[in-house]
Amino acid sequence: MADPIVDRLALIGIGLIGSSLARVVRQQGLARHIAVQSRRPETVARARELGLGDSYASDPADAARGADLVIVSVPVGASGTVAEAIAPALKPGAIVSDVGSVKTSVVRQMAPHIPDGVHFVPAHPVAGTEHSGPDAGFAELFRNRWTLLTPLPETDQAAVETVTRFWVGCGANVETMSPEHHDMVLAITSHVPHLIAYNIVGTAAHLEQVTQSEVMKFSAGGFRDFTRIAASDPTMWRDVFLHNRDAVLEMLARFSEDLTALQRAIRWGDGDMLFDLFTRTRAIRRGIIEAGQETEAPDFGRTPGAGKPDPAAR
Amino acid sequence: MADPIVDRLALIGIGLIGSSLARVVRQQGLARHIAVQSRRPETVARARELGLGDSYASDPADAARGADLVIVSVPVGASGTVAEAIAPALKPGAIVSDVGSVKTSVVRQMAPHIPDGVHFVPAHPVAGTEHSGPDAGFAELFRNRWTLLTPLPETDQAAVETVTRFWVGCGANVETMSPEHHDMVLAITSHVPHLIAYNIVGTAAHLEQVTQSEVMKFSAGGFRDFTRIAASDPTMWRDVFLHNRDAVLEMLARFSEDLTALQRAIRWGDGDMLFDLFTRTRAIRRGIIEAGQETEAPDFGRTPGAGKPDPAAR
Repeated sequence: MADPIVDRLALIGIGLIGSSLARVVRQQGLARHIAVQSRRPETVARARELGLGDSYASDPADAARGADLVIVSVPVGASGTVAEAIAPALKPGAIVSDVGSVKTSVVRQMAPHIPDGVHFVPAHPVAGTEHSGPDAGFAELFRNRWTLLTPLPETDQAAVETVTRFWVGCGANVETMSPEHHDMVLAITSHVPHLIAYNIVGTAAHLEQVTQSEVMKFSAGGFRDFTRIAASDPTMWRDVFLHNRDAVLEMLARFSEDLTALQRAIRWGDGDMLFDLFTRTRAIRRGIIEAGQETEAPDFGRTPGAGKPDPAAR
Repeated sequence: MADPIVDRLALIGIGLIGSSLARVVRQQGLARHIAVQSRRPETVARARELGLGDSYASDPADAARGADLVIVSVPVGASGTVAEAIAPALKPGAIVSDVGSVKTSVVRQMAPHIPDGVHFVPAHPVAGTEHSGPDAGFAELFRNRWTLLTPLPETDQAAVETVTRFWVGCGANVETMSPEHHDMVLAITSHVPHLIAYNIVGTAAHLEQVTQSEVMKFSAGGFRDFTRIAASDPTMWRDVFLHNRDAVLEMLARFSEDLTALQRAIRWGDGDMLFDLFTRTRAIRRGIIEAGQETEAPDFGRTPGAGKPDPAAR
């Protein structure tokens, strides 16, 4: 175990990301004290049961008071309110960071509230599962994934380095880019994929010709893959789409244009166009596996026959 | 091990599905003799090395001659050609079946070639992985998945029962429906999901604002899930879209309509509409897990940090 990177860490919000941070920080000894906060009393109580922190609070200012590093892990629509709430409690030299999936909006919401002498280093760990809440977190969530930092030109370089060392300590790779570029990259790699997954699950649920029971039973033909990300936290994702509107609409327009071209190829029987696309897309998956971001095992390594109901439980 | 269901089984085509059948049939003793066929000499040679059959042929008629059950596992566009080729070799009382993902077109292509006294029972196991070829198969592929039979009104009931027992022997559940209904169900549960997965991978590969390297590195935000089914066999999928055109275009129109409504909600900031959809879609995944068609483990049970390149291999 290495030396702690910060003395006192405050985790504002203790859902999937916050509670994964709590676990890995404890496991790797990245902080001497972990202050855990949630605005819901039942979540604070659960975090306490799970032993995620060293102190607990429902008021974000109480958790942030005296912290060296404050990480805000709340739906992005709540970023401004949280920044405003913690501002008076922040000590000089403290670093405020976050984990939001949108960065320009978070900067716009939070930056005005950050006091002089406090460093603001927006961040986004590109990692997650479809589960949420303090029970869903695990220490390995960030291992080998990327955390993107989007510091502003005026951000203190030492603070950026501290946040970088913190995420590397959590097992992540770190890269820096502008908030605007981040939001464009995530629109295509995360936001639009979530939107079309939510959308097809919605479409399938409202057909006259095919029952919901049929959709569920015969989902192994591909549909079930989409239901995983369409089971992600609704509040978090509502906020992502509302707060990354322009980039999402631009990428969605590209997607729809391309889909219309495919539709036309199907209508007119252009097999060569289909075959050509279907061949090129294989290379991208190969690249993702080689980039260390995906398992090579077929079917994501799902156990064959996975999900067989326990006969004794019926 | 139970008694064999058929004496002589012919597998026409020995890719992912054919070779999985060969393995489970051997493992469960479902046939006394397995005749393996592929039109490619190198695939026949590989099947022989893997010991998948008891006899090997490159001419489909040679494999089908004297068989009690012939299962055609080729891209659906080749169904008619194969049926024509095997027809003269089929013995009276033989059963011909297939595994195609489209059923009306396969019936239209194959039925005219089936000789009098031979029974035709179209079938479709809803199972697969993104890998293809004789090495990709495994005996557990059909376990707890559904095989859909689409017999015609005049089909011999005893033949349907034999094919049902065969698939149950392979570990599958079996349900019967009309070819037309099958094609509508699969359009939404399999074909449109594949199309939009291929499409978004194509879109992401051709952006000016985001590089391919960024798409790959930051794909854990959701995109990588889509690349799995977009890595499926191009020939098979080209044929599916060309041969299930009408149902795919109808379901695609529904998908696009719904996506336009979501796009509008994002543009106008209608958070309630987004939240409402995102909440309802969770229930569908829950239903799929309860239907025994999906693992409950987060992230498909992927190993955390999965895909980390072996440092020694760099």
